[in-house]
Amino acid sequence: MDVDDLILISVDDHLIEPPDLFLNHLDAKYQDQAPKLVRTDEGNDVWKFGEIVMETAALNAVAGRPKEEYGLEPQSLDEVRPGCYDVDERVMDMNAGGVLASMNFPSFPTFTARVFASDDPDLSLALVRAYNDFTIDEWCGAHPGRFIPMAVPVIWDVEQTAAEVRRCAEKGCHSLSFTENPAALGYPSFHSDYWDPLWQACVDTATVLSVHLGSSGRLSIPAVDSPPDVMITLQPMNIQSAAADLLWSRVLKTYPDLRIALSEGGNGWVPYFLDRVDRTYEMHRAWTQQDFGGRLPSEVFREHFLTCFISDPIGVEMRDHIGVDNMCWEADYPHSDSMWPTAPEELHAVFVANDVPDDEIAKMTYENAMRWYSFDPFAHVAKSEATVGALRRQAAGHDVSIMSRSTRVRTADEKLEGFRSRARRAMAAQA
Amino acid sequence: MDVDDLILISVDDHLIEPPDLFLNHLDAKYQDQAPKLVRTDEGNDVWKFGEIVMETAALNAVAGRPKEEYGLEPQSLDEVRPGCYDVDERVMDMNAGGVLASMNFPSFPTFTARVFASDDPDLSLALVRAYNDFTIDEWCGAHPGRFIPMAVPVIWDVEQTAAEVRRCAEKGCHSLSFTENPAALGYPSFHSDYWDPLWQACVDTATVLSVHLGSSGRLSIPAVDSPPDVMITLQPMNIQSAAADLLWSRVLKTYPDLRIALSEGGNGWVPYFLDRVDRTYEMHRAWTQQDFGGRLPSEVFREHFLTCFISDPIGVEMRDHIGVDNMCWEADYPHSDSMWPTAPEELHAVFVANDVPDDEIAKMTYENAMRWYSFDPFAHVAKSEATVGALRRQAAGHDVSIMSRSTRVRTADEKLEGFRSRARRAMAAQA
Repeated sequence: MDVDDLILISVDDHLIEPPDLFLNHLDAKYQDQAPKLVRTDEGNDVWKFGEIVMETAALNAVAGRPKEEYGLEPQSLDEVRPGCYDVDERVMDMNAGGVLASMNFPSFPTFTARVFASDDPDLSLALVRAYNDFTIDEWCGAHPGRFIPMAVPVIWDVEQTAAEVRRCAEKGCHSLSFTENPAALGYPSFHSDYWDPLWQACVDTATVLSVHLGSSGRLSIPAVDSPPDVMITLQPMNIQSAAADLLWSRVLKTYPDLRIALSEGGNGWVPYFLDRVDRTYEMHRAWTQQDFGGRLPSEVFREHFLTCFISDPIGVEMRDHIGVDNMCWEADYPHSDSMWPTAPEELHAVFVANDVPDDEIAKMTYENAMRWYSFDPFAHVAKSEATVGALRRQAAGHDVSIMSRSTRVRTADEKLEGFRSRARRAMAAQA
Repeated sequence: MDVDDLILISVDDHLIEPPDLFLNHLDAKYQDQAPKLVRTDEGNDVWKFGEIVMETAALNAVAGRPKEEYGLEPQSLDEVRPGCYDVDERVMDMNAGGVLASMNFPSFPTFTARVFASDDPDLSLALVRAYNDFTIDEWCGAHPGRFIPMAVPVIWDVEQTAAEVRRCAEKGCHSLSFTENPAALGYPSFHSDYWDPLWQACVDTATVLSVHLGSSGRLSIPAVDSPPDVMITLQPMNIQSAAADLLWSRVLKTYPDLRIALSEGGNGWVPYFLDRVDRTYEMHRAWTQQDFGGRLPSEVFREHFLTCFISDPIGVEMRDHIGVDNMCWEADYPHSDSMWPTAPEELHAVFVANDVPDDEIAKMTYENAMRWYSFDPFAHVAKSEATVGALRRQAAGHDVSIMSRSTRVRTADEKLEGFRSRARRAMAAQA
């Protein structure tokens, strides 16, 4: 298959929230209290909610920049591509990158929107609902067929979360951003029955629990002075932890129709993981009393988990050990792991190197995403107009040149110090 | 290659310390203060050192038991095979299991012997030295060519550790049991220059840093109520963390001859790990300022790290992505992951299934172990007498029947509760 003939749905991208996020969706009485985007004296854009200041306005949104300008420090909207926060610009960037459709995770509210928690539960619930109405109705609604809608939970209240899942499903949303580890955030663990109303709502509405890497709030670094490369290398570790925690829990046994996506979790670790869970089962089930009704845990994994990868040559090579029906491509726009706008070429090279047949490519690049997320872009976009080649033709003239419009390019030393101070704060918060 | 023709050196087994551990190696003035093995009213054997009681006398030493009798609760020496603590019995068990030679990690003192720390530094140092003299001179010395000697560190004092490495190397010991993460134990991290005298001593004496899974003291469980299967599945996670922490540290750049074994760490995760470190390097080195002198981090990994596996079909299948010069077989006797006495058959089946040529089998089963650990069993045992078949002939008549001599077989419920109370204590200690 030629790279121009690929059809790409990305199941993991990121929305950098625009300043008018709450304008059209929050009751007038709450507008003053809603989080506001403000610029600090240092020139960073931060969200303020009451006394809370969230620095990560545009965390790591480096798509289009030269590698010398990568870094994790906060930035302002002036320093990122408009496609980060403007939906029309985003669709142009998607066209230029050959991406038919995209699912977007939240940024400043965190993956579980837990920053909306406050002393006023009515305000907090209103913020969650307004956020979901913005993303589903305004962002995704602006370009039908181009976005897989995703909701955020009312993480501090399971009954309200279940109700929100049902409310959003009626608007066509079948994805909920959730955490790898509720216990790490101070809520009941996956082993509690506390979450049962949510699991039931997900099953009733065919809503996928989309669990993004990093959503436990735990940092995967061995020591506070570990270099940033260690954290970048180890990021997928927490998602393996979530996969194990859910796989061995009562949740999948009680809710056999529940589906979970391991967003940005990669694929290459899965074959070893499945080997380990089957061996653990074989060796220890007599005393741990696990019972999957005659099936192996690896079979149960394939019924419940979607794995998401950017290019991941090892995972593609080992796809028969994972299951080609369980693998979905993702772009990770606008983060540094994204190869925008040349991701199709990178992915295509991995398919070619591993002799992947066309039917398997189709599963991994769009068919699995459509099935798992109950999403049909072709109701709005003709298949012939959905390919990498066709989309790029629509983007003719769109500026994809390397963009370095910031006047505030930091030195490598400043970036390293930015990482270190963040690591110190995170480790202190964990201790 | 026939299973009888395999030659097996195991680079990871475990000593369950005998009651007379310190008898022949500790100055008379310290004998009263040394740790003592005592039996509790409940029938458990525990080591007492001052006010400290260590319950893990025979943790998980279930070799030879039916799976129904597996569990993690403490046991007494009456409940384990004599080969756990008696060197002549151990050699008979090794013969029966077809194992030519074995390297043994400590049990009750922990992997770093940090339980020997006390208010009296002279006593503490004397205990470390006595422990090493016991294992090197008495245990390994009893059967030349059958054991790779390994020392424990004076973990609370780097200069004393360096001196102990040099002292033990003069006795032919080229392995030091160390921790995955000194920072997690309250010592300076791998990124500090505190450990430099130790790295220098290891390089000067060709001593391998043998870093065993679990040696950070951190438990890999997402929540206190996660079932035991989650912990068993995730055990290799901390060792990946150690590999990343050391690979990106200044240590390997400053000490290019330092060698590290990832004991019981498995192999199947390595291909994805190496892909991730190379991609991290390619994408981020401009700001993280990593510099391996023109080489890729995956190349640096292969120069420094030995990976250790029990059977691990995924790792064997992917051996070209790992490096067959970096893979060593291990048995893990007497723990539950060990397949004693049928490990050779299990390993052989994995080699057959993956069409592994004889020269690669030889590397993984004994040649790599000999080279990395400067160990030559053939100075003492003729090669023709070193094969699985030849050793088993020597063990004719040795009782390898399933042994269940305990009168205290616990119910599965008791075992689960034992796990849960240990998890609660460990999580409380981490918090």
